[in-house]
Amino acid sequence: MTNLIEYEQASDEVRAVYDDIRATRQTEYINNFWKAIANHPPTLQRTWQTVKEVMTSPGEIDPLMRELIYIAVSVTNGCDYCIASHTASGRAKGMNDTMFGELLAIVATANTTNRLANGYQIPVDEQFKNQ
Amino acid sequence: MTNLIEYEQASDEVRAVYDDIRATRQTEYINNFWKAIANHPPTLQRTWQTVKEVMTSPGEIDPLMRELIYIAVSVTNGCDYCIASHTASGRAKGMNDTMFGELLAIVATANTTNRLANGYQIPVDEQFKNQ
Amino acid sequence: MTNLIEYEQASDEVRAVYDDIRATRQTEYINNFWKAIANHPPTLQRTWQTVKEVMTSPGEIDPLMRELIYIAVSVTNGCDYCIASHTASGRAKGMNDTMFGELLAIVATANTTNRLANGYQIPVDEQFKNQ
Amino acid sequence: MTNLIEYEQASDEVRAVYDDIRATRQTEYINNFWKAIANHPPTLQRTWQTVKEVMTSPGEIDPLMRELIYIAVSVTNGCDYCIASHTASGRAKGMNDTMFGELLAIVATANTTNRLANGYQIPVDEQFKNQ
Amino acid sequence: MTNLIEYEQASDEVRAVYDDIRATRQTEYINNFWKAIANHPPTLQRTWQTVKEVMTSPGEIDPLMRELIYIAVSVTNGCDYCIASHTASGRAKGMNDTMFGELLAIVATANTTNRLANGYQIPVDEQFKNQ
Amino acid sequence: MTNLIEYEQASDEVRAVYDDIRATRQTEYINNFWKAIANHPPTLQRTWQTVKEVMTSPGEIDPLMRELIYIAVSVTNGCDYCIASHTASGRAKGMNDTMFGELLAIVATANTTNRLANGYQIPVDEQFKNQ
Repeated sequence: MTNLIEYEQASDEVRAVYDDIRATRQTEYINNFWKAIANHPPTLQRTWQTVKEVMTSPGEIDPLMRELIYIAVSVTNGCDYCIASHTASGRAKGMNDTMFGELLAIVATANTTNRLANGYQIPVDEQFKNQ
Repeated sequence: MTNLIEYEQASDEVRAVYDDIRATRQTEYINNFWKAIANHPPTLQRTWQTVKEVMTSPGEIDPLMRELIYIAVSVTNGCDYCIASHTASGRAKGMNDTMFGELLAIVATANTTNRLANGYQIPVDEQFKNQ
Repeated sequence: MTNLIEYEQASDEVRAVYDDIRATRQTEYINNFWKAIANHPPTLQRTWQTVKEVMTSPGEIDPLMRELIYIAVSVTNGCDYCIASHTASGRAKGMNDTMFGELLAIVATANTTNRLANGYQIPVDEQFKNQ
Repeated sequence: MTNLIEYEQASDEVRAVYDDIRATRQTEYINNFWKAIANHPPTLQRTWQTVKEVMTSPGEIDPLMRELIYIAVSVTNGCDYCIASHTASGRAKGMNDTMFGELLAIVATANTTNRLANGYQIPVDEQFKNQ
Repeated sequence: MTNLIEYEQASDEVRAVYDDIRATRQTEYINNFWKAIANHPPTLQRTWQTVKEVMTSPGEIDPLMRELIYIAVSVTNGCDYCIASHTASGRAKGMNDTMFGELLAIVATANTTNRLANGYQIPVDEQFKNQ
Repeated sequence: MTNLIEYEQASDEVRAVYDDIRATRQTEYINNFWKAIANHPPTLQRTWQTVKEVMTSPGEIDPLMRELIYIAVSVTNGCDYCIASHTASGRAKGMNDTMFGELLAIVATANTTNRLANGYQIPVDEQFKNQ
């Protein structure tokens, strides 16, 4: 387990990121992910900047659906931390039990058909090329 | 590469599934995936039934977002056939270039943070448990 | 694409492995996998020795079932070369279309339940521990 | 961690599935997997129906070998729950220590050769095509 | 396959990234990866900025070893494009056949031991915690 | 969890491997990985022989960099045991916090670009072929 960098012990550059996380999310709470990657400040800065842009900037996919997509990837990869943290984020943005159930059903089905496509070595249909 | 079962050579049980695919999707076209898994009729029946329910039954996640989630899983797994076919389905349901770009940005970012969480062996925050 | 090392151009140590592959498999044919990894002779020797022991030494799992397990892993990982080569090996050892269909159905189902278990963050039952 | 749905609190449709699991497996015990996915009844019904058909219907691969294939996939994906539960199922069906050792040796070897095939970008042999 | 954005048809913001790629790498050639992700300019900018920092900024891991690590990940994931492009980058920075062979041997071995650790459900040694 | 085979209860062939691990690593400590796979002695012998050759034999990649590559694979696969044990090995060979941070940044970035390459279905540049 990695040392978690608390605000009090953090350098100025790390504190600046923590401050921006707090302001963006409108909560005092900094979750363990950021405290862990703060061990390498360039990673903290770059990752926060990316997550902030990708998850919160204006766009055509709404914030709740962005969380569902994030969970789909994390479940496929089996990343316990990310499943737990983004399930929490999803719930905070309105994901209810039915929606979560539907999401996992899609993820489970895609993981099934991905392997059937691999196993049967299926050639891509001409009309699916050049999309 | 697997033998693709065409309608003309198919058994009655396979034809019944092909007929339902055509009726559900309102197109004559049966794509290679179904023609390949038709080599094992129980897999064809079960997989079509599941895909039909999960992707087309009424629910809280709209049809376009279901396709985005499907693509997210397929891209994470690197399944060429499924990426091509569901990108086509997504476009048919209204996914434009911007939306596709945003989708892949989320998928890419989640794949990054999944590995940072793994590598730093980050403990799950108490408040993320029991979601 | 990697340079494939043919018998004629191979060093003595590589030829010795090729000779053992031919004797063990009772065929003149050396498939591309071995010709490719022969670019690094220690990898060729070690990998052949391992594959020979694991796939052909006497044991409790019969040779055909060993191929099915090999295919299950390769399909899950999406390794095109290994799917193609071990599907060929499986067929040479008696795998018919029905058996292949059943195999892929199990692989597909396991990939589904693996993700449901991840997504629902299911605790392991006490009675499944210490197996 | 997900809320586990006990029989007593379950809806009629969930109870019907639990009853069928008990009858099929000839045990009172319902393991956590089913209690967790019961949070989304359509997923419970579909998944149980699929697992029942794929793992228990008559076929050419015997029940013990089906469990070994299931374990092979779960180990490759690193799904802790599924490894634990299917190792238990395998043992209940006769998997001994030697067989489990042989199984993991095949899984480990396939994971090695899958990456060598990827890394050396090996072209598929003509004779392995159209299997 | 995605539309590849050539310099001539690119917007000013895309051209600015292409110019920086050319200046940083001291070559006129822009490879397909950048031309593809240029379909979503924020992804192009963010990804180039990250790759530039992670792969070319001063640090304790030398540039050749960074390429080897990149290849190790890409081979494990089975990403054909990234294996091909980073094998080329590695060779340009001094990776010879022996080094590539050693690299793949390590990747193959780690993929094997990862699955043995999964399969045997091995508890982490006390002395490996809190690293 | 698997039964861990201690030296005292081990067979002669297992003890011989334990003795070689101790001599090679110049430590009395045998970590859980070896005690677990000792349940299948051929796997223990083969795996130790491979790890010993791949990680300690003379070569062009230095021992510390070999550990970094091992960690990169283990983090990508999400293997908790291997991440913990090889992070410990890396630190014993001189990996400091900065180097670990740089390593994870490369792993995270490669996992991102692997998915962008998958998602955009990018064709491999002609000049990257035949490396």
